[in-house]
Amino acid sequence: MTDHLAAALPVLRLKRNEDKRLRAGHLWIFSNEIDNEAQPLTGFAPGAVVRVHNHRDQFVGYACVNPHALICARLISRDEAQPVGLELFVRRLKSALALRQRLYRHDCYRLVFGESDGLPGLVLDRYGDVLVGQIATLGMERLRPVLEQAIHQVINPRALVWKNDSSARDLEKLPRQVDVAVGELPEQLQVIEDELRLTAPLAEGQKTGWFYDQAANRERLKRYMTPGARVLDVCSYVGAWALTALRQGAGSAACVDASQTALDWALKNAEANGLSLDAHKGDAFDVLAQLHERGERYDVVIVDPPAFIKRRKDQPQGEAAYRRLNQLAMRVLSDDAILVSCSCSFHLPQEALPALIQVAAGNLGRTAQILEFGGQSPDHPVHPAIPETRYLKTVFCRVTR
Amino acid sequence: MTDHLAAALPVLRLKRNEDKRLRAGHLWIFSNEIDNEAQPLTGFAPGAVVRVHNHRDQFVGYACVNPHALICARLISRDEAQPVGLELFVRRLKSALALRQRLYRHDCYRLVFGESDGLPGLVLDRYGDVLVGQIATLGMERLRPVLEQAIHQVINPRALVWKNDSSARDLEKLPRQVDVAVGELPEQLQVIEDELRLTAPLAEGQKTGWFYDQAANRERLKRYMTPGARVLDVCSYVGAWALTALRQGAGSAACVDASQTALDWALKNAEANGLSLDAHKGDAFDVLAQLHERGERYDVVIVDPPAFIKRRKDQPQGEAAYRRLNQLAMRVLSDDAILVSCSCSFHLPQEALPALIQVAAGNLGRTAQILEFGGQSPDHPVHPAIPETRYLKTVFCRVTR
Repeated sequence: MTDHLAAALPVLRLKRNEDKRLRAGHLWIFSNEIDNEAQPLTGFAPGAVVRVHNHRDQFVGYACVNPHALICARLISRDEAQPVGLELFVRRLKSALALRQRLYRHDCYRLVFGESDGLPGLVLDRYGDVLVGQIATLGMERLRPVLEQAIHQVINPRALVWKNDSSARDLEKLPRQVDVAVGELPEQLQVIEDELRLTAPLAEGQKTGWFYDQAANRERLKRYMTPGARVLDVCSYVGAWALTALRQGAGSAACVDASQTALDWALKNAEANGLSLDAHKGDAFDVLAQLHERGERYDVVIVDPPAFIKRRKDQPQGEAAYRRLNQLAMRVLSDDAILVSCSCSFHLPQEALPALIQVAAGNLGRTAQILEFGGQSPDHPVHPAIPETRYLKTVFCRVTR
Repeated sequence: MTDHLAAALPVLRLKRNEDKRLRAGHLWIFSNEIDNEAQPLTGFAPGAVVRVHNHRDQFVGYACVNPHALICARLISRDEAQPVGLELFVRRLKSALALRQRLYRHDCYRLVFGESDGLPGLVLDRYGDVLVGQIATLGMERLRPVLEQAIHQVINPRALVWKNDSSARDLEKLPRQVDVAVGELPEQLQVIEDELRLTAPLAEGQKTGWFYDQAANRERLKRYMTPGARVLDVCSYVGAWALTALRQGAGSAACVDASQTALDWALKNAEANGLSLDAHKGDAFDVLAQLHERGERYDVVIVDPPAFIKRRKDQPQGEAAYRRLNQLAMRVLSDDAILVSCSCSFHLPQEALPALIQVAAGNLGRTAQILEFGGQSPDHPVHPAIPETRYLKTVFCRVTR
């Protein structure tokens, strides 16, 4: 986009003081922050790139707008000389890539983590020469052609798949669908993590196929593993925690998951790496209760459930569910054992996870010590002005009688 | 202590509902929570072991009392059948030792971290067969004979030194002094960390001589190190961060510290490990400004200052000081670089460090991404009911232009 065109973009004007959060670094604009008298929000073309001005008509940044969403615009650039376009996207992708190349030995990582990488609404996961993306905003959806051009220029992947089937799309009134932009739809994805060679499903998999956000926490498991330890991986998906534990010297490992498909992948991954696993299909709460009844005990239990708190209003029930699940997990722990407890719910406050672990331990007459607090892996950077970018909590505890 | 004697201990009675926090797992009793009508607090012998009862006269636990301190008592046992004495101390020490032996290859760690290990007021750091302790409460001071007996039984150290010279002692009206309980006062301490063999000063050193709490964060540095990186270690003490960086492939490292003694130890440690360091003596704020003026730039800067917020009322000035120091550090960073920013102030809230880093970056027109949040090493476990046991914050950031 030339400077001339950028100057001619429609102007989204903010109410008085509503540029304050943006000046402090945030990228989101809520629909009640718009000066509707200057220009009604409904008059903007859905997904259009606009200039954002403050109430004194000063330039704040370029953003994509969606008049029908609560977050009605997200800043993409604060520099008037850098409008939204190929050049900006190439620069952002190169910066994101440089960070991951510094941090990772293999090309397996989240390459772009939305707002934190200056690309609101975009997630791009890299599986070697295959990229799997997710677009969560109408603005980014409209910009797909230029984005794909930038991806071609910076990465030139063998395949690029948009796995746009998440519920986040509903908020922006975007259809859920899977599109192949480059190459052919791969049946499965190859991941190298902690020198394990793993395969993940794409079409039938969760999210983009793999949970890179837990990779750094799985690496941390090493410190807590004892030779011969009995390990239980609850809500295992394709078994990444259990396999990591086995590689780190666990004596045995079992996976619990509600999905037989996920467990089948876990068993295949174990075999491919010369390891062996047990698999228990069923609801995590039920299976933990059954294992306890049968007298099964474990030295390390990992509890990594799906988000129990998807919306803020679900917090009380969600916290109760986390507490119950952790308490069930503690009951199958041996006398001096490690609990790795995770929550990917942004709406669970940082301090709530230790608190509910304390309650669970108290209910069972046990003592919990928190040895380490883990967050998401560094390929999911946290934007220090956007609390919403920090969502994953993983707590390593010792539980004793 | 026999059960008979335990039953005869004086009773410290709480006001109505003041046992609630204790039931939830906390160990502290504040002086305004005592039912003074039942038995005036001032009537208790300073440092005595007491039975704590709730307002209905039900047993809550055994505690040590200090009528002259704001925290007038700390629970040591909640089990009526386990009174305070040799047997209890031996059990607590064995449990603490089992955890460290699980986590560490070498006998270099914090062996006891006060409340988190069920031994309020006691810190014990282990340097092989030398133990250096700190006692912060009158109760634990009075129990020293039985504690030393338990230490002899569980560890049998060659030397045991009480380095009771911290300001925390003033709150309990305890004198500041150094006592040798076992063996001879060692001139220096040997530490093995990340396979570096290091020597730390005891008499002239800070705290017990070494900051084990940062060991896990120093290990994390590896991921962020690039071959040949120029590293600056600000408030370096005896150079542990800089030496770790060099071991991990840094091209050069420099230490900044106000103490020439600390820098001399850093230089000695470098030499002993076949490494070399630069040293800049001076106030961290001044030295950073000078380095910036001279055009010095670094690829990794670690800022690990002493606590700027010692009391809650110092929070505003303390936060401003952290912000200024981090901003000065950012000015000596190269264009795409890593800032490791630490705060050991409990009174700096968890979310304040990223927030002030954002402000500092914003002031300089830079962008900060937080890659990892680190806390204290696992030999400093966090008690999930006692927020005060979680104090260290270390944030790994990427800072770009």
